[in-house]
Amino acid sequence: MLTLFYAPETCARASHIALEEAGAAFEARRVDFAKGEQTKPDYLRINPKGRVPALVTERGVLTETPAILAYIAQSYPAARLAPLDDPFAFAEVQAFNAYLCATVHVAHAHGRRGYRWADEPQAHEAMRRKVPQSVGACFDLIERELFRGPWVMGEAYTIADPYLFTLAGWLEGDGVDPRAFPRVIDHRSRMAERPAVRRALARETKPQEFRPAP
Amino acid sequence: MLTLFYAPETCARASHIALEEAGAAFEARRVDFAKGEQTKPDYLRINPKGRVPALVTERGVLTETPAILAYIAQSYPAARLAPLDDPFAFAEVQAFNAYLCATVHVAHAHGRRGYRWADEPQAHEAMRRKVPQSVGACFDLIERELFRGPWVMGEAYTIADPYLFTLAGWLEGDGVDPRAFPRVIDHRSRMAERPAVRRALARETKPQEFRPAP
Repeated sequence: MLTLFYAPETCARASHIALEEAGAAFEARRVDFAKGEQTKPDYLRINPKGRVPALVTERGVLTETPAILAYIAQSYPAARLAPLDDPFAFAEVQAFNAYLCATVHVAHAHGRRGYRWADEPQAHEAMRRKVPQSVGACFDLIERELFRGPWVMGEAYTIADPYLFTLAGWLEGDGVDPRAFPRVIDHRSRMAERPAVRRALARETKPQEFRPAP
Repeated sequence: MLTLFYAPETCARASHIALEEAGAAFEARRVDFAKGEQTKPDYLRINPKGRVPALVTERGVLTETPAILAYIAQSYPAARLAPLDDPFAFAEVQAFNAYLCATVHVAHAHGRRGYRWADEPQAHEAMRRKVPQSVGACFDLIERELFRGPWVMGEAYTIADPYLFTLAGWLEGDGVDPRAFPRVIDHRSRMAERPAVRRALARETKPQEFRPAP
């Protein structure tokens, strides 16, 4: 049995959807960011980084979305969520996910979490002003170069799809006009119709207390 | 035959070392950042992100260090650079590498590449001032929680080792006192003695012109 620690509207949604797509048996536990639960000892014992997602397995805890997504794909091969027998094709999926993790998500984070990289409020303001441009440039590259269609990697649905869907959900909040990215937005719309996505989103909105793993 | 596009002192060093550890046949081509070659059309045709590393294979181009490292490990299984038959252990390696990519490298990048996230010079200064603290906090977590020893993941040398070695080489330049991280620094010293690391570092310093792939 797996336990996914998540917070609503965060990148943990990608892992949540992937678990649903895989047909995994799992429990989802919400970490209340408004109460700062992610920085309290009970949660830091699970993930000392103080972030979500964290996936508790029988072997131990996994963190970092790209690692969790690849773990889900490899652990549930019947779900065919990645080209597991082709190192090059698998690396293409991983390269896309690494770009989302280290460039797109990071650009987005400068809108709300500038304190990670500077102390002065003026610097945080400067970072916030840049977000529409920096996030927009990322999605421009995705739209023009990286996205193949109909799914991210082409004909096959993979773990890159829930991750893109999750980050594309932040566009409007980041002040980026989604109409500039018709392929990404079409993908977002089609993703929202998938049963696995509907189930994950429905569960995200349910009130659930964080309880430390037994 | 593989071709690794790199620049000296960048994160491309991790892939360079991993190729050497794997015994791969490859050519290394230097991209001259001082001349801005990474932003010129010849290179953007290889990697539209305008960054290094990029690994040109017979199937196409791979980018993003964590993806390239996993590709090398999977393509040269005899080198035993990752626990390929154990999805959980593989995910642990990948989680460590994702942390280096999306948190440690990103913290470091605020020292020199603040223009990615803000336009104002004062904001860039504020980012630079924070680097010793933010990078130091990352290495504190690595030293205390993530690093197992003698290698990153424990007894087995993996693709996490050249990546940590590469980023640990930036500590002094980031204004972080390495004496606070004795296990990381001991690892760095042992890494520097490995023949594969010596070969990669020697090649990095050779003058080589960038030529677009034929």
